[in-house]
Amino acid sequence: MSFDKLIEKIIEKKNPTVVGLDPKLEYVPDFIKRRYLDEDGWTLKAAARAIYEFNQAIIDEIHDIVPAIKPQAAYYEMYGHYGIRTLEKTIRYAKLNGMFVMTDGKRNDIGATMEAYSNAHLGVTRVAENDIEAFGADALTVNGYLGTDGIEPLLKVCRARDKGIFVLVKTSNPSSGELQDMKLADGRTIYEAMGDMCEKWGEDTRGKFGYSAVGAVVGATYPEMLSELRARLPHTMFLVPGYGAQGGGAEGLKGGFDENGLGAIVNSSRAVMCAYKKEECDERDFAKAARREVIRMRDDITQYINLK
Amino acid sequence: MSFDKLIEKIIEKKNPTVVGLDPKLEYVPDFIKRRYLDEDGWTLKAAARAIYEFNQAIIDEIHDIVPAIKPQAAYYEMYGHYGIRTLEKTIRYAKLNGMFVMTDGKRNDIGATMEAYSNAHLGVTRVAENDIEAFGADALTVNGYLGTDGIEPLLKVCRARDKGIFVLVKTSNPSSGELQDMKLADGRTIYEAMGDMCEKWGEDTRGKFGYSAVGAVVGATYPEMLSELRARLPHTMFLVPGYGAQGGGAEGLKGGFDENGLGAIVNSSRAVMCAYKKEECDERDFAKAARREVIRMRDDITQYINLK
Repeated sequence: MSFDKLIEKIIEKKNPTVVGLDPKLEYVPDFIKRRYLDEDGWTLKAAARAIYEFNQAIIDEIHDIVPAIKPQAAYYEMYGHYGIRTLEKTIRYAKLNGMFVMTDGKRNDIGATMEAYSNAHLGVTRVAENDIEAFGADALTVNGYLGTDGIEPLLKVCRARDKGIFVLVKTSNPSSGELQDMKLADGRTIYEAMGDMCEKWGEDTRGKFGYSAVGAVVGATYPEMLSELRARLPHTMFLVPGYGAQGGGAEGLKGGFDENGLGAIVNSSRAVMCAYKKEECDERDFAKAARREVIRMRDDITQYINLK
Repeated sequence: MSFDKLIEKIIEKKNPTVVGLDPKLEYVPDFIKRRYLDEDGWTLKAAARAIYEFNQAIIDEIHDIVPAIKPQAAYYEMYGHYGIRTLEKTIRYAKLNGMFVMTDGKRNDIGATMEAYSNAHLGVTRVAENDIEAFGADALTVNGYLGTDGIEPLLKVCRARDKGIFVLVKTSNPSSGELQDMKLADGRTIYEAMGDMCEKWGEDTRGKFGYSAVGAVVGATYPEMLSELRARLPHTMFLVPGYGAQGGGAEGLKGGFDENGLGAIVNSSRAVMCAYKKEECDERDFAKAARREVIRMRDDITQYINLK
C-alpha cells in the first residue's frame, strides 16, 4: 500500500533503474527467431514464443543487478492473445526471479471499467469461487484524464494487495507539452495540476520512506521539470522514461531524486535489449551484453545521486 | 480514412447506436456459465469461453438492427490471454455479421509505442514476410493526453486502411470535470482544447458526410456540452456513452446530432446485455431480450433526431 517494496529492492541493489521489456521482434536475435519461425510458421504465435525466450534470457542476466522490469503492454498486444500470454509469463518469470514488475499500460476508464483493469493487472479476477491473478503485476501506469473516479478502483487494489500506480504527469515525448504544458487560469500548468492530484490521491497510502502508492511518470527529456516536480510532489515516486535512446542524459536526472537518492526510478528499454547490436558482439551474447549495459547504466546514474 | 463506412451503416439501418459488449461474467446467464465451468473448471479459460458464447448469441440477434459493437478491452483483459482470445473472436464474429467494430481501449502512449497499439488494434503485425491482423477492429478509442505524436501513428493506419479513432474529450463519469472542465488561461476548458485538437488531427481525413477519421468521446451525461461541442467541432463524429444505465436520457442526446441526424453514435452496454434481467424473462431468452432492448433504444433515440 505504498512503494516500500520497490524502494527496498532499489536500496538492496543500490540501483534506481528499471528495464523496459518492449520487445519488438526486430530486437530478438536471428538465431532465436529462426527457431520459432521454423517450428510454428510465420505466425503471431511464433513471434510471441521467440519474444518469451528473449525476455527470459534477459531476466536471467539482469535480475541480480536491476530491481524491476517494465513490460510495455503494446508490444505484447501486437501479437494478439499469444502476445498477451507472453506478457503473463514474462511477469511471472520476473517475479520468480525476485523482481518488481510494473506493467506499462497507461490504462484509463470510468470507475466500473477501471475496476476491471485494476483486477486484471494488479488484483484478481473472480470466477465462481476462485480468485485468479490474470497478470499479477506489482504496479501499473495509468492516465488520469478521467479524474478521481477513474483512479479510486486502483487505490482500492493498491491498499488491499500492496500495489502501486504511476500516473502520467509529464511524458517524455516531443509533443507532450501541447496539452500538458498549457497554462490554467489558476496559474498552474496542466501537468502541475495532474501532479497535485497524484499527491492527493496518494495521501493515505504513504510508506516508511515517505512515498505513497501513487507515483508519477515524468520524462527524463525535461530535466528542469523533473526537479521542479520533485520539490512540488514530495510524496510521489517518479517513474522516469526517456533516459538513453530518447535523449535524456544521466546528470539531468539527478533533480528527480531526493537527498537520499530515492524518489525516482529510471527506465531504459531499447539500449538494454539492443545492447548486443550497439556492441556489435555475437548475437548469441545478447543477454550478457544486456547485463553489461544495465551495469553501465546503474553506474552512470548513481554517480550523480546520494543513494546509500 | 473517414467514418464514411460507419455512417453508411448507420443510414442503412436508420440507427445511430452501438452496443457495448462489456461482458462481466455476472451478466452471462447461468445455463451458459454452468456448462463451461463444468467443462473447464472455475478458470479464466472457462469464463472466457462462456463470454464468447454469450457475445455470439447477442451478435446473432442484433446485427440486423444495430450497425456497430463496442467491446470494452478491460472486460476481456480481466481473463488474461483467454479473455483476449475471446476479444479477437468477438471482433471477427461481428465483422462476419457485417457490423462495424470499435474497440474501447482508451490506448495512449508515445509515438513509437503508439505505433504498436495502432498496428495491434487497427493495422497489421509483421512477422517475417507475413502481415497479420492481431485484432482487426475498425476503430479504437484513445486518450490524447500525450499530444500529436501519440496520435500520428494512428492517423497513418487510419489513412492506409480506412479506420477511425475516437479521442476522449468529455467523458461520462461523475468526476470527468475535475481535469476536463478546468479553465485554461486562454479562456477555453481543457475538454474544449482537446476537442479543437481533434478537429485539427482529422483535417485531411474528411469523408463525404463531412466527418473526419478522428472522432471524440462525449458523454451523454452532460447534454449541454454535447450540443456546445457539436457546434464547435463540425467535422468530428461523436461516440456518446452514458445513455441508459449511467443516467443520460434520449432527449438530451439530440444536441449531439447534426441537422441530418448524423454526427453521433450512442452506446448502450449493460441495458442490452442485461435486458433479460430487467425483463425478468427466462434467462434462455437473453438474446431475444437484448434484441427487444436495441429496438426500444433505436426508437427512443431516433424520435428526437432527423435521420432519414
